Amino acid sequence: MKLYTYFRSSAAYRVRIALNLKNLAYEAVPVHLVKDGGQHLKDDYRRVNPAGAVPALVDRDLNLSQSLAIIEYLDEAYPYPPLLPPDPAARARVRAIALDVACEIHPINNLRVLKYLTGELGVSEEQKLAWYRHWVEVGLAAVEARVAGNPESWKFCHGGHPTLADCCLVPQVFNARRFGCRLDHVPTVVRIDAECRTLPAFVAAAPENQPDAE
Amino acid sequence: MKLYTYFRSSAAYRVRIALNLKNLAYEAVPVHLVKDGGQHLKDDYRRVNPAGAVPALVDRDLNLSQSLAIIEYLDEAYPYPPLLPPDPAARARVRAIALDVACEIHPINNLRVLKYLTGELGVSEEQKLAWYRHWVEVGLAAVEARVAGNPESWKFCHGGHPTLADCCLVPQVFNARRFGCRLDHVPTVVRIDAECRTLPAFVAAAPENQPDAE
Repeated sequence: MKLYTYFRSSAAYRVRIALNLKNLAYEAVPVHLVKDGGQHLKDDYRRVNPAGAVPALVDRDLNLSQSLAIIEYLDEAYPYPPLLPPDPAARARVRAIALDVACEIHPINNLRVLKYLTGELGVSEEQKLAWYRHWVEVGLAAVEARVAGNPESWKFCHGGHPTLADCCLVPQVFNARRFGCRLDHVPTVVRIDAECRTLPAFVAAAPENQPDAE
Repeated sequence: MKLYTYFRSSAAYRVRIALNLKNLAYEAVPVHLVKDGGQHLKDDYRRVNPAGAVPALVDRDLNLSQSLAIIEYLDEAYPYPPLLPPDPAARARVRAIALDVACEIHPINNLRVLKYLTGELGVSEEQKLAWYRHWVEVGLAAVEARVAGNPESWKFCHGGHPTLADCCLVPQVFNARRFGCRLDHVPTVVRIDAECRTLPAFVAAAPENQPDAE
């Protein structure tokens, strides 16, 4: 397998965790989102992923994109260990937490969105940072509301093994720290993040441990 | 089943389509996103969905939120007719198209984001509209790149039956029209949207056909 990745990309980080949790070896192909005006926007990469977004995973003749679709694919094609529980209700809970991050926080703070803010809209660096922090803090509070005091979240987001939800949560908490967001209002999120980061699969997937880290 | 819905909510519209495609009867409970300063933000509704987002689906003792998690749940709990193809590669393709809409377009143009733009950032109505159109037009171009000339998309987004991808695409095209976005660059998207809207399940789910339509 070949993973087109950027060390700081939150979506690539999710897939790296999933691949590691499943003990799937992969070749990392770095795609720099800043250098050369963004290598992800060049024709070379657009032949891999026409949307020009990172990550993309190539598995034999299959060309996959969208991090959550990739992780669901991995879970179906390489079922062990599972990243979703067996029961539909529990699966819905795990997916909802993953989507709380993937739909409610991350897209609003994506690089291209921040660029539009400071470029087209002439927003200041300070306002941009306040925007970033606002969506992370509000979004993680929604995750906290799902996990706090919920016996299902006794160890990880759901149960005693990491799931798709944890694959999404840890990269988001990483970004939250990077941009100095408040985390004191989401103690369960912080506790789960710490629990995840004791596992080698999460450690190996961290931005600072990537071959293209700066 | 009880669906907490708002006629114009794109995410609620997705779930309405899915429920109709599966012939599942439901009681629509309207939650007005503007009236009373947003009924979704009141304690009453937060007891249903602490994140204060629409839609939420209550199925017996289960309380579900996040539209894509709800639709995946429906597909697992009520498998016929399926909204995802059986093969993992095809499922990944359908999910990727759904996420192109649900992660790359919709969150950036959500009501709360537009409010932050005009409120906190003091962006003009004209700039807000340009922002809206930009993300829809760029985002739908990414969908077009997946479906144009792809034999898998001969009728719907994937194959001869509507899937999760169509449940997401049609509400987004509805919004695109509502806000006067360009669509001439996405002819396959327009063709698939028209195909979907010949089906009663899509017609009955449309905003103008909801009990709370204005």
